[in-house]
Amino acid sequence: MFWGELVMRFPIDLNLFEQTKHTPTLPQLQQHVREMGSEDAKLYDYCIPVNPYFPTEAMKEEYHDRLESLLKYYPDGSQAAATIAGLMGVPADSIVVANGSTELITWIDHLYVKDSLATTIPTFGRWTDQPLETGKKLSTLQREESKSFRVEPDDFVRFVRDSRARVATICNPNNPTGVRFTQAELRYICRELNFLDLFIVDEAFIDFASMEPLDSLSLQQFAPRMNNVVVLKSLGKNFGLHGIRAGYAVTNSKLASHLRGMLPKWNLNAFVIALLEMLPANQAAYEASRIRTVQDRNYMGMRLKTISGLKVFPSEANFHYVKLEDSIGGTQLRNHLLTEYGILLRECGNKLGSSSQFFRIATRPEGETERLVQSLRDSIASLSDRLWPLAQ
Amino acid sequence: MFWGELVMRFPIDLNLFEQTKHTPTLPQLQQHVREMGSEDAKLYDYCIPVNPYFPTEAMKEEYHDRLESLLKYYPDGSQAAATIAGLMGVPADSIVVANGSTELITWIDHLYVKDSLATTIPTFGRWTDQPLETGKKLSTLQREESKSFRVEPDDFVRFVRDSRARVATICNPNNPTGVRFTQAELRYICRELNFLDLFIVDEAFIDFASMEPLDSLSLQQFAPRMNNVVVLKSLGKNFGLHGIRAGYAVTNSKLASHLRGMLPKWNLNAFVIALLEMLPANQAAYEASRIRTVQDRNYMGMRLKTISGLKVFPSEANFHYVKLEDSIGGTQLRNHLLTEYGILLRECGNKLGSSSQFFRIATRPEGETERLVQSLRDSIASLSDRLWPLAQ
Repeated sequence: MFWGELVMRFPIDLNLFEQTKHTPTLPQLQQHVREMGSEDAKLYDYCIPVNPYFPTEAMKEEYHDRLESLLKYYPDGSQAAATIAGLMGVPADSIVVANGSTELITWIDHLYVKDSLATTIPTFGRWTDQPLETGKKLSTLQREESKSFRVEPDDFVRFVRDSRARVATICNPNNPTGVRFTQAELRYICRELNFLDLFIVDEAFIDFASMEPLDSLSLQQFAPRMNNVVVLKSLGKNFGLHGIRAGYAVTNSKLASHLRGMLPKWNLNAFVIALLEMLPANQAAYEASRIRTVQDRNYMGMRLKTISGLKVFPSEANFHYVKLEDSIGGTQLRNHLLTEYGILLRECGNKLGSSSQFFRIATRPEGETERLVQSLRDSIASLSDRLWPLAQ
Repeated sequence: MFWGELVMRFPIDLNLFEQTKHTPTLPQLQQHVREMGSEDAKLYDYCIPVNPYFPTEAMKEEYHDRLESLLKYYPDGSQAAATIAGLMGVPADSIVVANGSTELITWIDHLYVKDSLATTIPTFGRWTDQPLETGKKLSTLQREESKSFRVEPDDFVRFVRDSRARVATICNPNNPTGVRFTQAELRYICRELNFLDLFIVDEAFIDFASMEPLDSLSLQQFAPRMNNVVVLKSLGKNFGLHGIRAGYAVTNSKLASHLRGMLPKWNLNAFVIALLEMLPANQAAYEASRIRTVQDRNYMGMRLKTISGLKVFPSEANFHYVKLEDSIGGTQLRNHLLTEYGILLRECGNKLGSSSQFFRIATRPEGETERLVQSLRDSIASLSDRLWPLAQ
């Protein structure tokens, strides 16, 4: 028993982490801390990869100005696909807009995944849990730490062929590892997987892959020309608006028309439609926010590498995948960071193909990166001391 | 050609009505009028039945205060069903919360409507269009004008039996007619239809049926005890927040568990969760808003009956179903009211079992009712004059 654990600087009931499959949200924990009597104990979130530079102040103002009307009136979603089409250089009839990309994943599983699905692990939880929940066979290719979780295109193609699955999917960049196929590699993979019923490329984090122009990163302009490729993109994640729930799919017009026809009508709320109305005038601000986030990611990677006890893998997304040395438990570090430093970290123990020793750390601005690096360094040192008191 | 039609007081391109299956929304038309150069031409909406007395000013303030956090962070939906359960006196495991009741209708059709569905017409468009879109057989019972659109419970039961459909549904109160089965009648119907795979009672407008307590109107406390009854309720409609999209289903825990498991995860946005968080403290204000709306409905019914050329049917919802005399076209009246008085009305020409001569008029506060009554009276008189200039 340690004195430091009796007087937590951030009084948090750690059972909260057992109640949900996901890490509790920051506002939820902040509320909890307040209720425990620590009014000024500010928490810091490194769990959800969120664009900190968007929306702009003017956009927030517009949301305030239009708030009552957005709350009270049905939105008009009829122009949503056309707006995205204009922004992304994709035909409108190739676009299906949805209540978050999870709505698309769920319907794609229901409509098009007949028996089995093939994917690499670790990956976004819905890509493993969704098909298993509906009784499909899941074929997985484990990404190997020794290769920094990189998979060669030919190895991926061979794995999919050998799995005999009729549908395959890949998160690009991969979540949570941050490993990415280039656009050229993915075009090659798409052509090789042309025999599948469907090949889904989940690009939830592609905007933050690199400073190169989006057109050279995403496959969305390529997908409409293929017979079986669906690209999923997130609007909430990219534009820093996770609360509104918005995503879209890009595919050939025939498949888009079928999927659109199956999805619930009026699935977009007024705050999504308002975002789409504001985006065309805010493209430059978004591009700047995207570039700054990539810079922050590079900076954070460099800084995390200076912490002993932590292995940092190369990332091309707005988060880093890191591994804690085996002598300290990942859950222990997560709890210590939260209760002593008010820092919320995503420990990957519940992800297929990962473990509690791995963390996915969301990219934050430089100041918050410094806070994290200092706290991580101190925590790891402190937890190591406890393990080896005689070595001091 | 009439001078009055060349100089519209509200310059509106009526082709807007041809572009969407639904009537264009008020903010959309208001924007349109502004763009046409009439900055101060305020439009009035009698199209969408919306609770004008909710949310409270304090709730709107809370939305403003929390706006940035609501927009930026994922909400925690884990307590949503429990909150509704507490408010409605229903077990939490009987509740499935969704992105509007349309999400529920769509999934129910996909999962449980195998071949055919039976319902009365006219009804809410999704109950006729959804099964037809997915290739199901639709059996319909026409509500008859001569009976003020009322259907006897035994006639409904016989119709469903004879249809041989395995699933039946009823909107109660019926949309757009406003006719309602009492709770006792519906319990009787439920027992008689016990042989069906599923019987769905869509209670989107039940809160505004009468001033009696909700428990004596809704079937939601009854449904969990039946093997095949699903009650659908709207949160957006009741609470005057159509823009956020929220609804829920109540059924037995086994079916609820299955349906919940099939629905997309994280289907609720942050504004829905915030509403649920605010509701427990605002129950009395909601009850007052409900009662005021019922009073407004009764007042509007009384006033509409004073207009010659209009037949008003009894309503137990927050709208009235009315029929225009045959000598004037419904579309003509709708256009005249919009361009001359800035009044937006729902003409029912696109509803199966209805026609352009019928309107569904949303309940509004007394002042707006007077505006509508005066405008309707003037419009009908003016359009009659044009038809019979020699009779004057």
